[in-house]
Amino acid sequence: MKHTLSVLVENQPGVLTRVAGLFARRGFNIESLAVGESEDPGLSRIIITIDGAEHPIDQVTKQLHKLINVVKIRDLEPQSTVCVELMLVKVNTEGDRRTEVLQVAEIFKAKIVDVDRRTLTLQVTGSTDKLEALLALLRPHGVLELVRTGTVAIGRGRP
Amino acid sequence: MKHTLSVLVENQPGVLTRVAGLFARRGFNIESLAVGESEDPGLSRIIITIDGAEHPIDQVTKQLHKLINVVKIRDLEPQSTVCVELMLVKVNTEGDRRTEVLQVAEIFKAKIVDVDRRTLTLQVTGSTDKLEALLALLRPHGVLELVRTGTVAIGRGRP
Repeated sequence: MKHTLSVLVENQPGVLTRVAGLFARRGFNIESLAVGESEDPGLSRIIITIDGAEHPIDQVTKQLHKLINVVKIRDLEPQSTVCVELMLVKVNTEGDRRTEVLQVAEIFKAKIVDVDRRTLTLQVTGSTDKLEALLALLRPHGVLELVRTGTVAIGRGRP
Repeated sequence: MKHTLSVLVENQPGVLTRVAGLFARRGFNIESLAVGESEDPGLSRIIITIDGAEHPIDQVTKQLHKLINVVKIRDLEPQSTVCVELMLVKVNTEGDRRTEVLQVAEIFKAKIVDVDRRTLTLQVTGSTDKLEALLALLRPHGVLELVRTGTVAIGRGRP
C-alpha cells in the first residue's frame, strides 16, 4: 500500500538529510519527495510518498517523531486527501508529429511552455494516473526530457 | 544568486540522503527540492534550488559529480529555462470572505480542489513571483495550510 506522509519540519540545514536517511536505513524506497515552504515562515513541509507494502509504516513515523527539528507528521488517508503532481515533459516533434502531440496536449489540458523546430515542452498537472496516461501517448513520439515533482497532497476540510 | 540544479541520479536507496547531505555539510541551505521520475525508468531527477550567494556553486557541483549514483548535473541558466511551481493552499473563508477568495482565485487561474463550510483549497501553478503575489492577497484572510513543490525546471530547446 502506498503512503503519503506530510512532515512539517524546522527550516534548518541537515533536516532533509536526516529525514531521507531514516527511510533509507529502514529499507523504504522513497517514490517521490517534495519540500517547500509551509504556512509558517520558519517551517518547511516535506511530502513523501513511499510504498509501505513490505514494512509497517507506524515504526517509521514513530522514529520520525524522535528526529530533531521534526514538528508534525500526518499519514494522509487517500479518501480524504487531494493529491496532485506537476510534470514538465519535452517531446520530439520531428517529421509530422507536432500536430498529433498538440492534439494530445489539448485533450489533457496541458500548457505549451516551450517550442522549437524539433521539440515541444508541455506543462501538466493532475493525478499520477492522468500523467501516466499522457506519458503513454507521448512515449511513441520520443520523450526527450521529463521532470516530475512527485505527488503533493493536502487533507480535505479543516486542518 | 539563486541556482537551479537538475541532477539525474540512479534510482537507489540512499542517493537522496547523500545529495542532500553534501549541500548540508557545505553550508548551503536548500530552498526547495523535488525528486520524481525521469525520462529513463532507472533514473530519478532531483531539482534543487539553492542560494549560492555566499559560496561558489562550482565546488558543490564538482563534489556532486564524485558521488556514487549521480549520473548528470546541469546548472540551469535562468534565461534559457522554464521554471514553474505547484502550490496547494487552504484558506479561511469564515464570515463573508468566500466571495473575495473566489475572485482572487479566478484572477490567478487557480483551481478550487476542495471546499467546506469554512475553508477553500486552491491549486495553482506558476512562477514563484506569481505564487507569492497570490499568497500576499490570501494571507489577510488566513492561510491555514500551505504545500509547495518548490521550483521545477526544464531547459528550453533540445536537451
